[in-house]
Amino acid sequence: MSVRRVLCPGSFDPITNGHVDIIERAAALFDECIVAIFRNAAKAPLFEVRERVELCRQALAHLPNVRVEESDGLLADYARSRGVSALAKGLRVVSDFEYEVQMAHMNKRLAPEVETIFLVARPEHAFLSSSIVKDVARFGGDVSGLVPEPVRRALEAKFR
Amino acid sequence: MSVRRVLCPGSFDPITNGHVDIIERAAALFDECIVAIFRNAAKAPLFEVRERVELCRQALAHLPNVRVEESDGLLADYARSRGVSALAKGLRVVSDFEYEVQMAHMNKRLAPEVETIFLVARPEHAFLSSSIVKDVARFGGDVSGLVPEPVRRALEAKFR
Amino acid sequence: MSVRRVLCPGSFDPITNGHVDIIERAAALFDECIVAIFRNAAKAPLFEVRERVELCRQALAHLPNVRVEESDGLLADYARSRGVSALAKGLRVVSDFEYEVQMAHMNKRLAPEVETIFLVARPEHAFLSSSIVKDVARFGGDVSGLVPEPVRRALEAKFR
Amino acid sequence: MSVRRVLCPGSFDPITNGHVDIIERAAALFDECIVAIFRNAAKAPLFEVRERVELCRQALAHLPNVRVEESDGLLADYARSRGVSALAKGLRVVSDFEYEVQMAHMNKRLAPEVETIFLVARPEHAFLSSSIVKDVARFGGDVSGLVPEPVRRALEAKFR
Amino acid sequence: MSVRRVLCPGSFDPITNGHVDIIERAAALFDECIVAIFRNAAKAPLFEVRERVELCRQALAHLPNVRVEESDGLLADYARSRGVSALAKGLRVVSDFEYEVQMAHMNKRLAPEVETIFLVARPEHAFLSSSIVKDVARFGGDVSGLVPEPVRRALEAKFR
Amino acid sequence: MSVRRVLCPGSFDPITNGHVDIIERAAALFDECIVAIFRNAAKAPLFEVRERVELCRQALAHLPNVRVEESDGLLADYARSRGVSALAKGLRVVSDFEYEVQMAHMNKRLAPEVETIFLVARPEHAFLSSSIVKDVARFGGDVSGLVPEPVRRALEAKFR
Repeated sequence: MSVRRVLCPGSFDPITNGHVDIIERAAALFDECIVAIFRNAAKAPLFEVRERVELCRQALAHLPNVRVEESDGLLADYARSRGVSALAKGLRVVSDFEYEVQMAHMNKRLAPEVETIFLVARPEHAFLSSSIVKDVARFGGDVSGLVPEPVRRALEAKFR
Repeated sequence: MSVRRVLCPGSFDPITNGHVDIIERAAALFDECIVAIFRNAAKAPLFEVRERVELCRQALAHLPNVRVEESDGLLADYARSRGVSALAKGLRVVSDFEYEVQMAHMNKRLAPEVETIFLVARPEHAFLSSSIVKDVARFGGDVSGLVPEPVRRALEAKFR
Repeated sequence: MSVRRVLCPGSFDPITNGHVDIIERAAALFDECIVAIFRNAAKAPLFEVRERVELCRQALAHLPNVRVEESDGLLADYARSRGVSALAKGLRVVSDFEYEVQMAHMNKRLAPEVETIFLVARPEHAFLSSSIVKDVARFGGDVSGLVPEPVRRALEAKFR
Repeated sequence: MSVRRVLCPGSFDPITNGHVDIIERAAALFDECIVAIFRNAAKAPLFEVRERVELCRQALAHLPNVRVEESDGLLADYARSRGVSALAKGLRVVSDFEYEVQMAHMNKRLAPEVETIFLVARPEHAFLSSSIVKDVARFGGDVSGLVPEPVRRALEAKFR
Repeated sequence: MSVRRVLCPGSFDPITNGHVDIIERAAALFDECIVAIFRNAAKAPLFEVRERVELCRQALAHLPNVRVEESDGLLADYARSRGVSALAKGLRVVSDFEYEVQMAHMNKRLAPEVETIFLVARPEHAFLSSSIVKDVARFGGDVSGLVPEPVRRALEAKFR
Repeated sequence: MSVRRVLCPGSFDPITNGHVDIIERAAALFDECIVAIFRNAAKAPLFEVRERVELCRQALAHLPNVRVEESDGLLADYARSRGVSALAKGLRVVSDFEYEVQMAHMNKRLAPEVETIFLVARPEHAFLSSSIVKDVARFGGDVSGLVPEPVRRALEAKFR
């Protein structure tokens, strides 16, 4: 049996408890898990890519087979260069589904040996997204329980 | 590294080329793959469960790490009894997605150690389902290219 | 320029004002329009196919280029035998859309020279369907304005 | 200020914790709440209407402004006869939404003075439905936490 | 019986006949209705918040229990500060539904005592939105019947 | 029989093989087909409208009854000025469907004599869009097979 590797790509601006859950579950299905933070995926991001990497590392420190990387360029190329078997994505709602299905078809075309697998967000995370978290934090709403503690503190610092 | 096993459940009444594609891709991500044909999943099935098992075995004979089983009862119990890490399901359209998400949440609750992963049907299979195939075959339409050859012959025999 | 013909297939159990609107609009785009009532399309229909044909004829009598036919078998075969350029279907909601898209792909495969075109139901018909009309009529609700007058009388007679 | 009354209609075969939550929240917005169990709404119900009424009464006994009624016929007529201001329905998923929107339009047409309001099921109930609960109970799965305790016992008795 | 209050939040840039209909129906279910125009909800709004307030006041002058307010910050905080029982939102299409459901879950978390209720837009308003109205008006299309008369005049003045 | 004309509107920034397929099929149903490139439809387009027109002309040169025009203003006005019977649009996914349905209702209101017809994208084009093609090309991915050859070369030149 060769080592099987999964890639969890995203902009993670910032990482939420919904992301952490999906990464934990993807990491449990494979030998190794790479979390790839795409520099260019978010338009006008709140956090610099370095900050996003650092927050992901803190939020995922309890997962020994996960490593966080900063990346760039075409996802399919990146996946291939890392020798992953699969991309893992979380699905929350129907509109996620349609967009992600389009991306999965395109990635399959560009790198046929890389599979995309979808995991369903836990029901209590179905309303969670990085942008809704930022909207709440921006106006002083309480985001504890929605994001890892270091992210909560970083949001507070940004919007103070 | 322990052996990782995936379960592909369904009624497979009958197996289509869409099912074969999903099973091939799921089997490639895990060490072993069990295809479980649920006796009770289809209402008024066209094929007896024995026939469905036989057609699946013929259609999947080229996949060395796949075995076909007849099963019954609660999917979550079955998955647990087989020691699988994941259930794999194909997604074609939004209405699949919503139903499958509900089932995934329920199965997670009944067997938290079993993950559900979704693979997206290839675009050219997006319109394929066992029931549409049966509707076409019933009126003498040509289903070659939509189902494995043994299934095509079995449908022809049923509806002659 | 050759004669262009469109086919409006359905079970029409019974025809509603929503169907009439779609047929009027399809008929206006082509030289000839065939309304094909599929004997086998409805499970346990309320109206016999002969009644459905008769009600369609009355409801569509004002459209000189429309003729109503009873039909059977595979829609793609029927369309081909009638030399139509297109099948026309009305779309109301997302769930219609997904099912109809699957059927359109299958029909394209079976009869590539026949196109499927979709027309959007008028907003005030978005909630109208044969089954909702039957449910209302069954309990004595008023369906005038939802179905052509002969259909209203026929429903009243059925449920008296 | 006149008394404002809300109606929660359904087949409740059987009532789940998802239903209880929606009824609690609807009852909190109005002075009185009627839970109407429609005899004819479920096809081949598991529980007789009398049993369903009894289980609803036990599950809702903690809500002083709620009463449970058995009913029949057209929902719009029933709502009007009870003088309610609104029908309340729970929404879980997109497919619920489309069907319920159609019913809301039809009911608005039949009884324009009665409003339909929708409440969103709590995320942890998004996968809950009477039929999924019956499927799980039928095969001996554990439904505690999904239905009120009297319903759990009734399901166990049915499927023993 | 205490006074029950409902809040209709939005950017109202500008108010359409679809908004007016939802507000009329929400106001009829509660003792008091607050229409809250969020300064920050619209990106690059066409109308200043003062203009939007003024147009809403004119469009809603016939509703004695409605008052229009300019507001800011977090919707959940605002709802709580005004002591409302419920937020009312109109639903038109599935994509509205998914976004609004996410917002409803988040608001429930931030202010558990405030319910979100959804009313379904009348069929003839299902295609109406502030942005489609602005697109039509920008190119000189006729928007009478889609927006209140003062809004029609204000749009004409903007785009003359 | 008078000449029947269909209009295929869009921003075509740039034209993809999915667009070409829809235009071929629409052109086959009518006597004449106008492809109208709206100057203002795309925000921050990659290609100037002149380039988009030129690429469309090259991609559609094999269709004798198609002509490509640059246009502006309100689609309904343009359709009317060209005397078209119908607008033709391709549908890929549910989110397309909802937006396009809204536009179809608005256009029907503005120009009642112009019908909107929808054709379903071929399954293998279901994931294709101008923006996904640009994203892939921007990072050096291979887009041959997704766009006409002149478009592939133009994308390569843009992103070199």
